[in-house]
Amino acid sequence: MSSVSSRQPRILICGDLVWAHEDAKQLFDGLANVVVMDAQNRADFLAGLKSGGKYDGTVGIYRHNVSADRIGVFDKDIINALAETGTVKWIAHNGAGYDQIDVHQCALKGIRVSNTPGAVDDATATTALYLVVSCLREYSWAQQSLRNGTWKTPLSPGRVHDVTGRTLGVLGLGGIGLRLANLLHAFPMRVVYYSRRKIADAPEWCEYIDSVEGLCRESDVLSVHVPLREDTVHLVGEKEIRALKRGSIIVNTARGKVIDEEAMIRALEDGHLSSVGLDVYPNEPHVNPRLLEFPQNCLLPHMGTENQDSQRHMEVRALTNLRDFLRDGKGRDLIPEMSKL
Amino acid sequence: MSSVSSRQPRILICGDLVWAHEDAKQLFDGLANVVVMDAQNRADFLAGLKSGGKYDGTVGIYRHNVSADRIGVFDKDIINALAETGTVKWIAHNGAGYDQIDVHQCALKGIRVSNTPGAVDDATATTALYLVVSCLREYSWAQQSLRNGTWKTPLSPGRVHDVTGRTLGVLGLGGIGLRLANLLHAFPMRVVYYSRRKIADAPEWCEYIDSVEGLCRESDVLSVHVPLREDTVHLVGEKEIRALKRGSIIVNTARGKVIDEEAMIRALEDGHLSSVGLDVYPNEPHVNPRLLEFPQNCLLPHMGTENQDSQRHMEVRALTNLRDFLRDGKGRDLIPEMSKL
Repeated sequence: MSSVSSRQPRILICGDLVWAHEDAKQLFDGLANVVVMDAQNRADFLAGLKSGGKYDGTVGIYRHNVSADRIGVFDKDIINALAETGTVKWIAHNGAGYDQIDVHQCALKGIRVSNTPGAVDDATATTALYLVVSCLREYSWAQQSLRNGTWKTPLSPGRVHDVTGRTLGVLGLGGIGLRLANLLHAFPMRVVYYSRRKIADAPEWCEYIDSVEGLCRESDVLSVHVPLREDTVHLVGEKEIRALKRGSIIVNTARGKVIDEEAMIRALEDGHLSSVGLDVYPNEPHVNPRLLEFPQNCLLPHMGTENQDSQRHMEVRALTNLRDFLRDGKGRDLIPEMSKL
Repeated sequence: MSSVSSRQPRILICGDLVWAHEDAKQLFDGLANVVVMDAQNRADFLAGLKSGGKYDGTVGIYRHNVSADRIGVFDKDIINALAETGTVKWIAHNGAGYDQIDVHQCALKGIRVSNTPGAVDDATATTALYLVVSCLREYSWAQQSLRNGTWKTPLSPGRVHDVTGRTLGVLGLGGIGLRLANLLHAFPMRVVYYSRRKIADAPEWCEYIDSVEGLCRESDVLSVHVPLREDTVHLVGEKEIRALKRGSIIVNTARGKVIDEEAMIRALEDGHLSSVGLDVYPNEPHVNPRLLEFPQNCLLPHMGTENQDSQRHMEVRALTNLRDFLRDGKGRDLIPEMSKL
């Protein structure tokens, strides 16, 4: 993909471009050389960034979480190394959640960080919708029962409900939460939400509640859509879980650590929660085996955006953010922590 | 539930009333005695219908498919016995599909048959929606993989698609098909449909196609919503399946025999179909073991309406049809085959 020309700045691809090779060529034509990061470990990566190194001249970085397998997350050490180049000015992260990047250090060092918020909304909200239906109807259990040869024997309509008429609590009415709200309001479900502040342009049928605990008291299904930050770790804890009605459901397509997993499992064990629908876990790919003991839980292996359409949208969106910066000196999708840059 | 009074006609409950005991009392108060059919076999049932028998004086029958476990389906013999009573005038079937009743014999003998069409639309369409998402995203496989301890190893985003932007082919735009169309048009999916005739009040975004084969040519996902009748057995056969695009999906929440199962399995085996999402099978509860060989198939044990909200709606709706007939001499939800009565 890279045509070497020392005249042009470099865009460094950290993590694979799977779907958007051709788009990358077109986007950076005449603007930059696109170089794929080939370092197999962190030391090799850091050496490459130094003057005369193989990544010298890098002005922008495309980052995918898979790069962590080789060089680790973008922690303070990596951010400092990027800052020391004097050339790296933008990290275009592919994904909505950017908890693998020390964004405070980025802000301190004047390196901008963008994510791909809009591109993930549809696929992730669809995943949350699937988990909501699966849990309300016990369809994960139903599938296991059929494949085990027991047809519908262990199932009971007395335990389960229609989607229609239940109350959905959206924790974080960003792009994904709003998309889910729209899809489920179509049934209709009643929709209540909590965000750090009331969303001015939310649909009038989205009822704002000014605390997480208050949100839980109203919800039959709580669906989590906040990013993982220091202040969102265990945002859904013992107190919030116990504020949910008995028999409620928790769905999480955001990040595992936003929920206190121990408190959630205790609530499953004593029947306070009827089931949980999870796409994310605190220490992926590890899954707490106690979650598997409940056949009614619908457990997906972080599939939120795992389809070719969304993956391509995300790659193109991240690359476009970098291209816009190179061409125009500015780009879209800067994360909130960059607001002072 | 029954307060014996020889003055009042009898309503015979064939199959359990699970959710609507109290509703039944209120609905028939002063109109009829509600008697629960306690026969353990067909001979006992038929004897009870005779003059002086325990079901003598029955004017209307509430019927649920579970009654078939004891007295068999409502075939020609049972219909003739009901007709011979001279009193039975109405069979209120609980369910949308009434393939367990010989409705032609009913029409011949002047016994009206109603079903519960509206009451099943929401729950069944939600089931179809679940199967569509599961198949498009391979979420059944994803769940199996997680529970097997292999995280997302066998999965690939390259095989799967967003729901948004695909084309849904609705085979039979009745209440369930239309409800599914509305839920999936919200993403949006493009919606095409075939019915025996163009539906005059269908939304303008529902595109009519005048043959099943033509419908298949347009569809990424074919969802079946026609009742089982003689003329719908294998309505989706080899020719129609092969008219689908390579990699398409078939979803069936109607009746198993509407699809030629052998042709469908062949198409899975040679990759013409990428997966199938099934809630119904030709010989339930038997499931063809060849269907289980495909982890990407989402297989539910006929759960379409298995939740307490829908079950209660259905029981009340069927009972209300009988009550209206008793009180007013007419009722709603007469099936199309009764149009000449």
